[in-house]
Amino acid sequence: MIEAEKRVAAEAAATLVQDGMTVGLGTGTTVAQLLPALAARDLRGVRYVSTSPRTEAAARALGLAVEPFALPALDLAIDGADQVAPDGWLVKGGGGAHTRERLVAAAARRFVVIVSSDKPVEALRPPVPLELLAFGLESTLRRLPGARLREPAQPSPDGGLIADLHEPDGPLADPAALAAGLDATPGVVAHGLFPPSLVADVLIARGGEVEHRRLRA
Amino acid sequence: MIEAEKRVAAEAAATLVQDGMTVGLGTGTTVAQLLPALAARDLRGVRYVSTSPRTEAAARALGLAVEPFALPALDLAIDGADQVAPDGWLVKGGGGAHTRERLVAAAARRFVVIVSSDKPVEALRPPVPLELLAFGLESTLRRLPGARLREPAQPSPDGGLIADLHEPDGPLADPAALAAGLDATPGVVAHGLFPPSLVADVLIARGGEVEHRRLRA
Repeated sequence: MIEAEKRVAAEAAATLVQDGMTVGLGTGTTVAQLLPALAARDLRGVRYVSTSPRTEAAARALGLAVEPFALPALDLAIDGADQVAPDGWLVKGGGGAHTRERLVAAAARRFVVIVSSDKPVEALRPPVPLELLAFGLESTLRRLPGARLREPAQPSPDGGLIADLHEPDGPLADPAALAAGLDATPGVVAHGLFPPSLVADVLIARGGEVEHRRLRA
Repeated sequence: MIEAEKRVAAEAAATLVQDGMTVGLGTGTTVAQLLPALAARDLRGVRYVSTSPRTEAAARALGLAVEPFALPALDLAIDGADQVAPDGWLVKGGGGAHTRERLVAAAARRFVVIVSSDKPVEALRPPVPLELLAFGLESTLRRLPGARLREPAQPSPDGGLIADLHEPDGPLADPAALAAGLDATPGVVAHGLFPPSLVADVLIARGGEVEHRRLRA
């Protein structure tokens, strides 16, 4: 059921891609459904960039033209999310790719989030994925009570280590304040709290239907 | 004259180090004067961590016991600065070591800044050093008007590339707002704006005298 919803959301997003576009590809089980939906379309001249080695390998295997991310901007980016709040805040990074996912989302003129019906929540909750610099890691963890490295160790392709913030024990009362605090913490390369300002659309599959939340034009 | 002041400030800071301390060593021409001042003291059991390969090599050559930065906290850190504002805000990173300098400063129970008399300013000005992720670099630069990579390319030991923010064309009206904006920019690993909350003491050499600004106990 959830897998079928992921496919429905992914197929709806695939129809947004047009010939000649530059498109960022996210990472995760919903994007895994997006890739064959894109490959099935008869698109010409689309240039893809990827947020993870995993997505890149899967996309190439399907014949999609993935290139290194050296573009100043992208027309579109499509990615999943672990949690979607009513106001559009997201938690991402369950797969540990949130640093590159954030860069690709920020570069996109239109960032489209695709999720199954289990991802919308009343309020975001921990864990919040982090990427931490390896240098001084013990001191960074000391400044982040409730943060723990993933085990086994999960190095990122950008040289950091993936961790998760497991506090507070309940909903995140103020995601913006938490995001700003994490941003300002030395040693935090990136975190998985994505603000609504990054997001253009959220496509939520419920059974065979797609609910389209438009956050901005 | 300025070189002599750097030595005076460095020698004053060296007297703060006591047997058995854990001490972070900054990077730059003033720290280059600190290292022989530390080596000249008969200190026992001091454990040093370094903010750059350059400092580490120079410290080891003088017989100082430098270890990898795997400590959760440091007793003391000593470093120079490119600019010191009256309220204690700093610009650091002329040498491109600001990412590690920030981590070491943040880990220190007491962070001591040592400068010659040309470093205190009425107001901070660009350039503000940055470290940017290599992934998506063109898109990050597009989001940072006035930022330019250093030439020749200056890779950091943490995998990023050193750049400088050259705007605005005049004093930084609000360093805290600029720092928060840079912190929130995807692709910015770290920047050279250090807040007064990181700084315990500023030792400013003026001729042979040292002015001691104490920002907190």
